[in-house]
Amino acid sequence: MTGFVCPIPAGGTEDVVQLAHGEGGRLMRDLLQDVILPPLHNELLLQGHDGCVLPPFSGPAVFTTDSYVVTPLSFPGGDIGSLAVYGTANDLAVSGARPQWISLGLILEEGLPLSMLRQVMDSIRHSAELAGVQVVTGDTKVVPRGAADGMFINTSGIGELIMPCPQATRIETGDALLVTGPIARHGMAILASREQLEVDPRPTSDTASLFPAVDALHRAGIQIHALRDCTRGGMAAVLREWADACGRSMLLESQQIPVLPETRGLCELLGLDPLHIACEGTMAVALPAGQVAAALQVLRSVPVASGAVLVGEVIPQRLAPVVIRRALGQLIPLDEPLGAPLPRIC
Amino acid sequence: MTGFVCPIPAGGTEDVVQLAHGEGGRLMRDLLQDVILPPLHNELLLQGHDGCVLPPFSGPAVFTTDSYVVTPLSFPGGDIGSLAVYGTANDLAVSGARPQWISLGLILEEGLPLSMLRQVMDSIRHSAELAGVQVVTGDTKVVPRGAADGMFINTSGIGELIMPCPQATRIETGDALLVTGPIARHGMAILASREQLEVDPRPTSDTASLFPAVDALHRAGIQIHALRDCTRGGMAAVLREWADACGRSMLLESQQIPVLPETRGLCELLGLDPLHIACEGTMAVALPAGQVAAALQVLRSVPVASGAVLVGEVIPQRLAPVVIRRALGQLIPLDEPLGAPLPRIC
Repeated sequence: MTGFVCPIPAGGTEDVVQLAHGEGGRLMRDLLQDVILPPLHNELLLQGHDGCVLPPFSGPAVFTTDSYVVTPLSFPGGDIGSLAVYGTANDLAVSGARPQWISLGLILEEGLPLSMLRQVMDSIRHSAELAGVQVVTGDTKVVPRGAADGMFINTSGIGELIMPCPQATRIETGDALLVTGPIARHGMAILASREQLEVDPRPTSDTASLFPAVDALHRAGIQIHALRDCTRGGMAAVLREWADACGRSMLLESQQIPVLPETRGLCELLGLDPLHIACEGTMAVALPAGQVAAALQVLRSVPVASGAVLVGEVIPQRLAPVVIRRALGQLIPLDEPLGAPLPRIC
Repeated sequence: MTGFVCPIPAGGTEDVVQLAHGEGGRLMRDLLQDVILPPLHNELLLQGHDGCVLPPFSGPAVFTTDSYVVTPLSFPGGDIGSLAVYGTANDLAVSGARPQWISLGLILEEGLPLSMLRQVMDSIRHSAELAGVQVVTGDTKVVPRGAADGMFINTSGIGELIMPCPQATRIETGDALLVTGPIARHGMAILASREQLEVDPRPTSDTASLFPAVDALHRAGIQIHALRDCTRGGMAAVLREWADACGRSMLLESQQIPVLPETRGLCELLGLDPLHIACEGTMAVALPAGQVAAALQVLRSVPVASGAVLVGEVIPQRLAPVVIRRALGQLIPLDEPLGAPLPRIC
């Protein structure tokens, strides 16, 4: 019969999240008013309902969701807050939509320092501003010590479709494959940070909003067949999915795949293939070969895609969905890992 | 340097969630194809993008989110799956919207029996059907043993506004306060289940979709000032929030508050006030006194609100936001707990 009465911890706990912060009473209202709501301030959120009535919008709506369980909560180049904003905004962007509104579902572990929560909320505010989205509705739950790992975040997002939704089924033989910048940065930044690897320079996450790149391609009238941010499973997972969807194979030129020296060094040290390592601000693009020059010019004019390059092409179906042309010219099928080599990178 | 290579557990683990199920590789695709997607089958979900392009809709959209961390995962009257569907659908309903589309964000703990996941997915399918919503986009994460508690679910929802969004600021002195059925059922069902209390009859959660009740009021042309499902913090938290929003006090007739005998018995045994205990399929309604008879007739014709009764009225502001008239006629202010007496009921 014990355990159901919510314990209010004795003194010295004012600076950490308490169970009672999640239970609908006065402490919860205080946490919302003092820590969570101020950084998110906007008129839609101020409606203060269980639901937010959105302003009218014209295009069809796109809806997406992602939960974030990354560890550590903060890493070079971002934290769970910026990841939760950009990750969901990017899912909308690669669906051909302008990210507009997001929800914020927080699951906090009892004992989480309020300073960490404040840092994450500030990061959410900052990245939402950069991504052009508003946090319009939210929810906060607290679970007892040991029932979660610091904090988890869910963001769901709504955007307005600005172009026909890119579809991997539109990919054709002869299409070019582009990537908007060096791959594997996010995964290796998380790994180096989690394992406290002393490397110089430290890998930094590429966490950023991809919408400016999508928007620039659209405005320039570039014909796009498929778009995808290379998150869990890395660029390899995206290409494998595309190959399955369009019934063709993806041929990559290993010499063309952009990897920063610090990322490559760490991958080689650990025996990891950068193609399997997650990005959080880098996308793959499939488009007609005739569009490559124009697309690269457009992409390189946008900061988030300034490192865009041509990495391969779509070929008739082979035994493997993804094949790599190595330096000496031989074609090698890319293995599919059972799981990814890095858990909890997002 | 250990810990970053995703371990594939040795034999005997096929029937539980493994870390690799969450990492974007083949096992993850199998989990999606075998367990998670089949019960949710619908054409929108089959788009298979990172985002779902929604069909066109006319009314303004309402957007809401909630995370569910209830323990135990299954309880008399429901489980975390039905709770996650009805809870979010009800947030839309009390905002004056017809629930239409929801997202499903799963956070699974390594070692969760797949049988439990299958049960929850089946419950999601069933309750989504009853609530008239489609799960159109989703995300699955797996965290290591000890980093979560079985499973957490986030559902975000989009609905179409069918009436002016009820607002507590519209509440006027003299308004009547109704409740659609016996209160405190959900919280006491969770408590009895969690603490394995041997009581007969066992309290059963009221988890259900409230939209039919909202829709019936709307169709009958009943004038509604405020609507709210009485979840965390119970009916007391709703009335306190209304009192704050409209600058008046809420007077409850203690004799009128509907509480089932099994709920009341357990509350008395444990020294809990049913007004503070959560419901998950019961809402409070504030409306002009002249509408009471018609509203009760309409509500009682809908199964989810068949126990609707008048419980009080709105009075000019007193020292306490909520006051109770006890059996002998004296008015007693209702205390506000620091936290709720029951953590993790939703």
